[in-house]
Amino acid sequence: MTDPTRIAPELLVSRWFNTPVPLSLAALRGRVVVIEAFQMLCPGCVSHGLPQAQRVRQVFAREDVEVIGLHTVFEHHAAMTPVALEAFLHEYRIGFPVGVDAPSEAGPIPRTMAAYGMRGTPTLLLVDRAGRLRQHHFGQVEDLLLGAQIAMLAAEPMTAIASGAACGVDGNCA
Amino acid sequence: MTDPTRIAPELLVSRWFNTPVPLSLAALRGRVVVIEAFQMLCPGCVSHGLPQAQRVRQVFAREDVEVIGLHTVFEHHAAMTPVALEAFLHEYRIGFPVGVDAPSEAGPIPRTMAAYGMRGTPTLLLVDRAGRLRQHHFGQVEDLLLGAQIAMLAAEPMTAIASGAACGVDGNCA
Amino acid sequence: MTDPTRIAPELLVSRWFNTPVPLSLAALRGRVVVIEAFQMLCPGCVSHGLPQAQRVRQVFAREDVEVIGLHTVFEHHAAMTPVALEAFLHEYRIGFPVGVDAPSEAGPIPRTMAAYGMRGTPTLLLVDRAGRLRQHHFGQVEDLLLGAQIAMLAAEPMTAIASGAACGVDGNCA
Amino acid sequence: MTDPTRIAPELLVSRWFNTPVPLSLAALRGRVVVIEAFQMLCPGCVSHGLPQAQRVRQVFAREDVEVIGLHTVFEHHAAMTPVALEAFLHEYRIGFPVGVDAPSEAGPIPRTMAAYGMRGTPTLLLVDRAGRLRQHHFGQVEDLLLGAQIAMLAAEPMTAIASGAACGVDGNCA
Repeated sequence: MTDPTRIAPELLVSRWFNTPVPLSLAALRGRVVVIEAFQMLCPGCVSHGLPQAQRVRQVFAREDVEVIGLHTVFEHHAAMTPVALEAFLHEYRIGFPVGVDAPSEAGPIPRTMAAYGMRGTPTLLLVDRAGRLRQHHFGQVEDLLLGAQIAMLAAEPMTAIASGAACGVDGNCA
Repeated sequence: MTDPTRIAPELLVSRWFNTPVPLSLAALRGRVVVIEAFQMLCPGCVSHGLPQAQRVRQVFAREDVEVIGLHTVFEHHAAMTPVALEAFLHEYRIGFPVGVDAPSEAGPIPRTMAAYGMRGTPTLLLVDRAGRLRQHHFGQVEDLLLGAQIAMLAAEPMTAIASGAACGVDGNCA
Repeated sequence: MTDPTRIAPELLVSRWFNTPVPLSLAALRGRVVVIEAFQMLCPGCVSHGLPQAQRVRQVFAREDVEVIGLHTVFEHHAAMTPVALEAFLHEYRIGFPVGVDAPSEAGPIPRTMAAYGMRGTPTLLLVDRAGRLRQHHFGQVEDLLLGAQIAMLAAEPMTAIASGAACGVDGNCA
Repeated sequence: MTDPTRIAPELLVSRWFNTPVPLSLAALRGRVVVIEAFQMLCPGCVSHGLPQAQRVRQVFAREDVEVIGLHTVFEHHAAMTPVALEAFLHEYRIGFPVGVDAPSEAGPIPRTMAAYGMRGTPTLLLVDRAGRLRQHHFGQVEDLLLGAQIAMLAAEPMTAIASGAACGVDGNCA
């Protein structure tokens, strides 16, 4: 799931919070994107994943690194509604953009979660400046390692990224 | 609000979880009752109050000390529904009885919360074996102090409790 | 080692810090005594035992509960000298009385540590108002339980304690 | 003190632990060097600085990043002797090389500490592959930021490093 030659699947979001306009990985090309996939009633997300995403937001400049929350509800759908999420984001003072992963007609797993083959929450994804998925962490990842991984993606020269725009429709890059 | 000569207001609960029968302070007379008033989307309740209540449940014998959660929703009512609470209790593995504080027609403050004059969540109440409110903590209380307070209530001789209904308005009990 | 009918062995201390006069369990009769046995280079003592003893000092009134540190050095004797201990107590802002457990001629285990049969550090001992050893914790003990145990000893009526003074030389109390 | 055009002052060490041979920044040229300056009786070093250095050791490969402890004793000299340090390193299971900062005849501040103008402990220094001091943190630095800083130094191309000795006084390198 972290094939560095392929463009990461686009976010499929039914509703956005904390942003005046919908976001997309395509529009964020040029920046590193940190995606924190969570459920508001997942204890590991509340105690570890989301606080870590907030720290990432504070440490890195927004012109280099964008942090996005993705509410990937795959259980307790009646409890974790958009109305409940909105209250949650307010109470936990989460200020970065959060998208609700679009429900699927095929089952309980929402669409972006399925496209990335996520195993559960919290999951943290790193997308490079060229839009390619470079890290896929399920569970906890320690701050030192995450800081290093984000910084290395942010430090990649733009020339390498420019060639990323030449990736074929098959996802392979020249 | 902690007048030791008065019987604590009865719990007004619209729905119970984790108990086959409704609970009441009257029926729990003879035991110390620890009431953890919380909201499922209150960060201080999730990180401090509820884990502390779980530790109280583990340290003290149930024949001496009963632990009860009280979901005192006074904001974000559409988010913190009984359905959402049920999922929350499951995910956070909260096994002690939890009652939903009965909504009030007069405003957003539920009825038990109003009767006790609670200022917010988390609030921890200690009711002695005779049914009198003895401690009312708003916010955080440290484990050492709480352990001491519960133990002292549990250690009070039954004779004092029996005569408790006869305590004078000066707070002295015969 | 926690026979409630026997008077706890007296402290054998070669040097005291943080007290103008030497302390003894005999002189502290009437108060609960919390003894935190530690080594200044024992990680569990530094991260858990000593901070807990400091919390005990803050929560309980000194007229009811005395907190004493006991430096029971049984390894690295050349490193954990009284001079080093004095610097340690200063840097860690430990303000309660601390005694250096008297070295033994028989081996590396100091004398009080041997008299109590301690297995290592940290060890926390609770001595009741009558001078009897009532709890002997090796390793970590949680705050809720410790707070309860101290409070229960502090709540024991003086009459029971008075009879403690009539314990025979065989350690048995009438 | 973090002039990127200057080679960092060499370590002045009177005794090494955890290494069969003395270390020097000169000999480590080509690797990023993380220097954790600490005192064994400094609470912030024990609770924050040294555990963080241990995490750095685990996250980064030794061929890229070397972690060195530097015992910069500037107070309580009689307490923090090499003998005491040896016991400390053993008890806290610190496995990376640790040097004792060489005492100065001029006063209590040891020689390397003085050469770097350190304000106290803990202090964390980052030296790049070319031997230049690039970061000087006094007090706490969070893991995310530190991980990013180390990774960026480790990612710097060797060509830039080779020419590093020729950086101009304006900070620009040829």
